[in-house]
Amino acid sequence: MKVAVNKPLPVYPAPAFLVGVYDEEGKPGGMIAAWGGVCCSEPPCISVAVQKARYSFGGIVARKAFTVNVPSEAQAAEADYFGIFSGRDGDKFAATGLTPRRGEIADAPLVEEFPISFECEVIHSAELGSHVLFVGKVVKTWAFEEHLDERGQPDPLKVRPLVFAPQFGMYYGLRDEPVARAFSVGRTIREGK
Amino acid sequence: MKVAVNKPLPVYPAPAFLVGVYDEEGKPGGMIAAWGGVCCSEPPCISVAVQKARYSFGGIVARKAFTVNVPSEAQAAEADYFGIFSGRDGDKFAATGLTPRRGEIADAPLVEEFPISFECEVIHSAELGSHVLFVGKVVKTWAFEEHLDERGQPDPLKVRPLVFAPQFGMYYGLRDEPVARAFSVGRTIREGK
Repeated sequence: MKVAVNKPLPVYPAPAFLVGVYDEEGKPGGMIAAWGGVCCSEPPCISVAVQKARYSFGGIVARKAFTVNVPSEAQAAEADYFGIFSGRDGDKFAATGLTPRRGEIADAPLVEEFPISFECEVIHSAELGSHVLFVGKVVKTWAFEEHLDERGQPDPLKVRPLVFAPQFGMYYGLRDEPVARAFSVGRTIREGK
Repeated sequence: MKVAVNKPLPVYPAPAFLVGVYDEEGKPGGMIAAWGGVCCSEPPCISVAVQKARYSFGGIVARKAFTVNVPSEAQAAEADYFGIFSGRDGDKFAATGLTPRRGEIADAPLVEEFPISFECEVIHSAELGSHVLFVGKVVKTWAFEEHLDERGQPDPLKVRPLVFAPQFGMYYGLRDEPVARAFSVGRTIREGK
């Protein structure tokens, strides 16, 4: 039976974006954002929601830039480390062994080892309450050549993105067999009539 | 090798939110939004990005409300139907056999059969380009009792949410075996030092 529940945000699936930033001294760091996603196609934009108390918050505001990096399943521990600890207490890149690569356009560090990375420049922000929503225009996208299909699009089953359910406290992965082809399987309903 | 790619938005994972709205005559309809996600914890908010040309756009603006409904794998065809066809051409609920339930608080229809539904009231919007970003405050959350764990949280492996990769043109599902426990697996890195 469908019932009202007092858990306001069981939103599935959520991403586990590693948001990369430089701090005031230029030390690379970042955090994990499950509260984020694409918010515009043209210009391409990705939004992330960040609490003001987060160490990364200052970096985004000061440099008007951040990166979004998609971890693979194999990088769950490194991603989770960025979600647990604060950059105030140390260099999270050094601790995890991940490599910060300076963005070519945006003033923020990419995670070299993660399969997909976006350089973003802040074009809008909104204070919503516990979180500030930052909208970043994607100015450059990076991916591994060996993950691209013939159209140049990264294949999700090669990328193996982490799927996050933060309030359930778990990371998941994609099943090998896709569920259905998009913009296609729905036509079976009309054809069936 | 990590290379620059000219596909700006291979953002994984994306959701396949069915955004439910009423049109001017009160006919229930909606669309699929892959561009969306949580954007604040307190108040709980979910954002969805909608093109002005979409029939659903007018409903959101007029009623300052929408619902977000999470489809399960078994509902891929129904969800995809909402993503392919326009409400201008007919009643998508009637065509798919889905049941619109009037929101108790928000002036928008829930999808009764989908495992999780959120009633949202618009508290912020931003014109970003091709899409307008709507931020909806979650005023009520619905889920199936039989999907809840002992904390009252819907279990992702019971919900079986569709995972969408719109630009790759495919829907995926979660693998049964979780990848790792969140806010936990990252500690192995610090302990290892």
